Amino acid sequence: MLFLSDNAAAVHPRVWEAMRVADASDAPYDGDALSQRLDAAFSALFGRDCTALWVATGTAANCLALATMVPPHGGVICHHEAHIEADEGGAPGFFTHGAKLMLLEGEGAKIAPAAIEALAGSLRNDVHQVQPHAVSITQASEYGRVYRSEELAALAAVVKGRGLGLHIDGARFANAVAFLGCDPWQACQGADALSFGCVKNGGMSAEALVFFDPALADVARFRRKRAGHLQSKGRYLAAQILAMLEGGLWLENARHANAAAQHLAVAAGQRLLHPVEANEVFLATTATERTALRDQGFAFYDWGVDGLRLVTAWNSDSAHVEALARAIAAL
Amino acid sequence: MLFLSDNAAAVHPRVWEAMRVADASDAPYDGDALSQRLDAAFSALFGRDCTALWVATGTAANCLALATMVPPHGGVICHHEAHIEADEGGAPGFFTHGAKLMLLEGEGAKIAPAAIEALAGSLRNDVHQVQPHAVSITQASEYGRVYRSEELAALAAVVKGRGLGLHIDGARFANAVAFLGCDPWQACQGADALSFGCVKNGGMSAEALVFFDPALADVARFRRKRAGHLQSKGRYLAAQILAMLEGGLWLENARHANAAAQHLAVAAGQRLLHPVEANEVFLATTATERTALRDQGFAFYDWGVDGLRLVTAWNSDSAHVEALARAIAAL
Amino acid sequence: MLFLSDNAAAVHPRVWEAMRVADASDAPYDGDALSQRLDAAFSALFGRDCTALWVATGTAANCLALATMVPPHGGVICHHEAHIEADEGGAPGFFTHGAKLMLLEGEGAKIAPAAIEALAGSLRNDVHQVQPHAVSITQASEYGRVYRSEELAALAAVVKGRGLGLHIDGARFANAVAFLGCDPWQACQGADALSFGCVKNGGMSAEALVFFDPALADVARFRRKRAGHLQSKGRYLAAQILAMLEGGLWLENARHANAAAQHLAVAAGQRLLHPVEANEVFLATTATERTALRDQGFAFYDWGVDGLRLVTAWNSDSAHVEALARAIAAL
Amino acid sequence: MLFLSDNAAAVHPRVWEAMRVADASDAPYDGDALSQRLDAAFSALFGRDCTALWVATGTAANCLALATMVPPHGGVICHHEAHIEADEGGAPGFFTHGAKLMLLEGEGAKIAPAAIEALAGSLRNDVHQVQPHAVSITQASEYGRVYRSEELAALAAVVKGRGLGLHIDGARFANAVAFLGCDPWQACQGADALSFGCVKNGGMSAEALVFFDPALADVARFRRKRAGHLQSKGRYLAAQILAMLEGGLWLENARHANAAAQHLAVAAGQRLLHPVEANEVFLATTATERTALRDQGFAFYDWGVDGLRLVTAWNSDSAHVEALARAIAAL
Repeated sequence: MLFLSDNAAAVHPRVWEAMRVADASDAPYDGDALSQRLDAAFSALFGRDCTALWVATGTAANCLALATMVPPHGGVICHHEAHIEADEGGAPGFFTHGAKLMLLEGEGAKIAPAAIEALAGSLRNDVHQVQPHAVSITQASEYGRVYRSEELAALAAVVKGRGLGLHIDGARFANAVAFLGCDPWQACQGADALSFGCVKNGGMSAEALVFFDPALADVARFRRKRAGHLQSKGRYLAAQILAMLEGGLWLENARHANAAAQHLAVAAGQRLLHPVEANEVFLATTATERTALRDQGFAFYDWGVDGLRLVTAWNSDSAHVEALARAIAAL
Repeated sequence: MLFLSDNAAAVHPRVWEAMRVADASDAPYDGDALSQRLDAAFSALFGRDCTALWVATGTAANCLALATMVPPHGGVICHHEAHIEADEGGAPGFFTHGAKLMLLEGEGAKIAPAAIEALAGSLRNDVHQVQPHAVSITQASEYGRVYRSEELAALAAVVKGRGLGLHIDGARFANAVAFLGCDPWQACQGADALSFGCVKNGGMSAEALVFFDPALADVARFRRKRAGHLQSKGRYLAAQILAMLEGGLWLENARHANAAAQHLAVAAGQRLLHPVEANEVFLATTATERTALRDQGFAFYDWGVDGLRLVTAWNSDSAHVEALARAIAAL
Repeated sequence: MLFLSDNAAAVHPRVWEAMRVADASDAPYDGDALSQRLDAAFSALFGRDCTALWVATGTAANCLALATMVPPHGGVICHHEAHIEADEGGAPGFFTHGAKLMLLEGEGAKIAPAAIEALAGSLRNDVHQVQPHAVSITQASEYGRVYRSEELAALAAVVKGRGLGLHIDGARFANAVAFLGCDPWQACQGADALSFGCVKNGGMSAEALVFFDPALADVARFRRKRAGHLQSKGRYLAAQILAMLEGGLWLENARHANAAAQHLAVAAGQRLLHPVEANEVFLATTATERTALRDQGFAFYDWGVDGLRLVTAWNSDSAHVEALARAIAAL
Repeated sequence: MLFLSDNAAAVHPRVWEAMRVADASDAPYDGDALSQRLDAAFSALFGRDCTALWVATGTAANCLALATMVPPHGGVICHHEAHIEADEGGAPGFFTHGAKLMLLEGEGAKIAPAAIEALAGSLRNDVHQVQPHAVSITQASEYGRVYRSEELAALAAVVKGRGLGLHIDGARFANAVAFLGCDPWQACQGADALSFGCVKNGGMSAEALVFFDPALADVARFRRKRAGHLQSKGRYLAAQILAMLEGGLWLENARHANAAAQHLAVAAGQRLLHPVEANEVFLATTATERTALRDQGFAFYDWGVDGLRLVTAWNSDSAHVEALARAIAAL
């Protein structure tokens, strides 16, 4: 009974099906009919002109986005627990040619506008200090927290007011939108680029890098190729993304994962370390309690010495979730 | 009737099947059982200890290999028509942090040992000139030419004699081995790293980067992650590669493509611009002749103003090949 | 009456004299007789084999050193107020091709061995997290604090125990040695590379990058050229460095600056924010007090809202120092 | 009697004098009065708004200029014997983060507009091939050849017509202007950035990087710092450059060197490998003849197996030049 992560879950049957259909075509790179449909699909989703590129990983999506916004001598303001800082093996430094991640604190791995102001305001505007060129946030955050529409509006106002770009790491953007129940644009408003996650949500190997500024996309195309991310059979990636969007599969899958997390959250009660808003649940537990859970067949990661992390997925088995909920309640 | 390239052909049924089976597992990244089998599979294939990493593209494989061998201030000797120089959008410069490609002439996009000696010998060994640290060749070459075992031995002797690393771009390595009919190691002997192509040979999105020097592989793992190429569902890539190797599918597919190319070569006769040794056929043709072929439904690329290129694939339809052979003969 | 910094003080007459003498020679780059004497001069100074390269700035010295020790995918542990992090405009990211500065706290901008252990111990040894490859400390620190010989020994033991390189930013190394009154090696023991500062100590445009590991120096030579730092008239830089070393000018100058700082420290009494060990004095002051000092003709930088920084130099005028001491005492 | 190069000649007395005067000031970096005068000095020289930054070397000037014009995924068209390609140790790849030098042939190391057109026209405008973003030429060229005003106009028209930037490596720009006897702008018209050489012309350690587009200069300032080229005692560099410009010293020095070269050219007669237009003389000679010259006390570099190179300088001794002229005539 796996609650380790959503990042290795099986591929959704409708994604498989779409990939098989893609066999028929054979224009290389992104010249195929499926890849050519991405811009329109995302423009419809967000109600504004979008340019969308497939890439294989969230790391590639995040870092290509940042590289289009930030010169090598610039900086990116982000949370110190952001995926780009903590889990991407230095990829932002690679793609941006050494730009600096400028780290903020913030509850639940979220960034507050005031923190951006404080950091930017503390810098001398001279060549001795790296100047920020963009802000990157994660929606839903690394602790499964979700920025509300009005929070994003306030944050974007500060970001734009300082002439910075805004990137959103949406590895679990579907979970955020499912939680908010809002129009997708409301969940990423103000972004210049969004890493729209599919892999954690039933996809296999495709994330969509969505640009709301077409000039950035033009540069990103060259950088994608240069980073070895322009697959010759790109149609199989486009197929995955389109399958996600069609019929709202992305939200359907996210809702399932979110509901499972809520179920666990209710069982956890006072143990919750963070409010559960997406598909991650962080619990205070002793080592003994974790052993007890593992002895019952549940797999998950420790979270420090006093906690654990549970992640649900599009395919979390309801019986497993129920069993885990009962086991937690019984601790 | 497509003879444009092998790079967008459909995925082989046995590859599909292996990918579907991979659904069952779910350890992330390369911690899954399939990824863990790659080293042994290639060690068996080459009869020596190998370390193999999956990556999504040949560009990534080539450039990761070079980045492990060449410092940013160093150079890579290669043919001026090598894929890394001509078709990878500057990716070698990205992955190596600016190392220089040092270009040679050579018939059929092959490099002769004497050319390496001449270039290396012309350099002053001082800091004002970039010093070569590796040689990269392509097997089969960009013109479908194949290095014989004894050619490789001679080349490797020169390369090693100068203390350089040897990389082989094997995007069509299967075609080369199928042509040579030799032990696989004979077709890449002396290499420190081999980009073992699968995508052009019936795969979807997986190439194997094979290291014959484990120290290079250790560095490559970090660089793969840093380049956004460590997919979380890597088992689907491992599955493709293993499917290729199992039962000799890689050679079976390559033999089919090679045979189709030979069929066309016979029909082409004196028009051949290069001997046909793999699955590419270059013909002298006039613009009028190319139009005539296209009018009959054949798709292919021009090759300069006086030629065309035909590429066959694992799934080239025998009737199409036969039709094209006849059309060429009738020109 | 300037106490802004030592970084723009006039050039010492004996340095001028040595530079004029260099006019006579004219071998280019570092092939001249003066440049060729650097290795021996530093080997004598430190009592061990050294390789020394001139460069124009401390930033170049620091970052070239780091680039020889740390791969692009690696990290450098340093203090969050280290010059390389706070004042070099992202140069470490440029020279290392994106390596990560991994920041520690520590009193007086010094790093404790335990802090290194804690940081290194908190990392998973996998490709998702940047792994440290070197530690960089500043002697004397950015707050004018000096590592004692035994502190260095303990720190080096931890650094070497983890297989890391050790770099010392010695922009004010002379001030540290003058304070310690020790053998120079005692003040940098365990270092693989030392940025030996001259510019702040009466030089014009030359710092010595001293390697205690000759393999690093071989790489650094190529990287110095590649960074545009191999001056064709390098003999004028070598002349500056040799003038510093000859007759102990470097220590003589540093002692003068240190003594001036001590004079000010005594006057400051309880206002001192840090013990004064080199040539920097940090005082708690109100804005009104700073205005009062400035009204008397003293120039210096604010240090936050409640403090100021004074820096003395090789040429600090005794009368100015005395006047400032009196003014501080009178606040 | 040295004719090896102008790159290590002694510093001109008026440059020394200006540097000594700079001792008096002490604002750091480029905040001093001398550095602040550079923009106006070059604006007056070129009759248009200029922004000028000092740097220590021609390599730094060239590569900073290119880095402001060319993204990492772009290319720079230049001659295959250009200094940036042949003698800068890969520095363009470092400063530009891996941009590609796209090499042309051309008589006397000069580039013809048609060659630019041919190269640019041969590229597919897609992401698989590096796209040029700038052209770099050398005035006077590496063979001492000078672009005429009308040649520059034609070249600039092609460059601008393709939307590319134009950089001029003017390590010996003074020699070119002295030869042309024209308004300085005529000798670099169309350039976006000019590396204005001083070191080879009597300076010590300062080149001026002159931007005719102020937006480029704003970026270059950050990149200069990031490359460790922002010297804290920059006033000594500014002093050198201003001394060069004042009273036309730059042209006076260049005229001296050019005249010496002409003297040698006359003596060389039919042996000349290139027309002599600046301060370099290339002669066809046998090894025996070179030995004969060296036996008479002349120092110079071989140029291949059948030639030699002579370089005159601002301080070439007339008696030495006369002696060499006679020795050449007597061969």
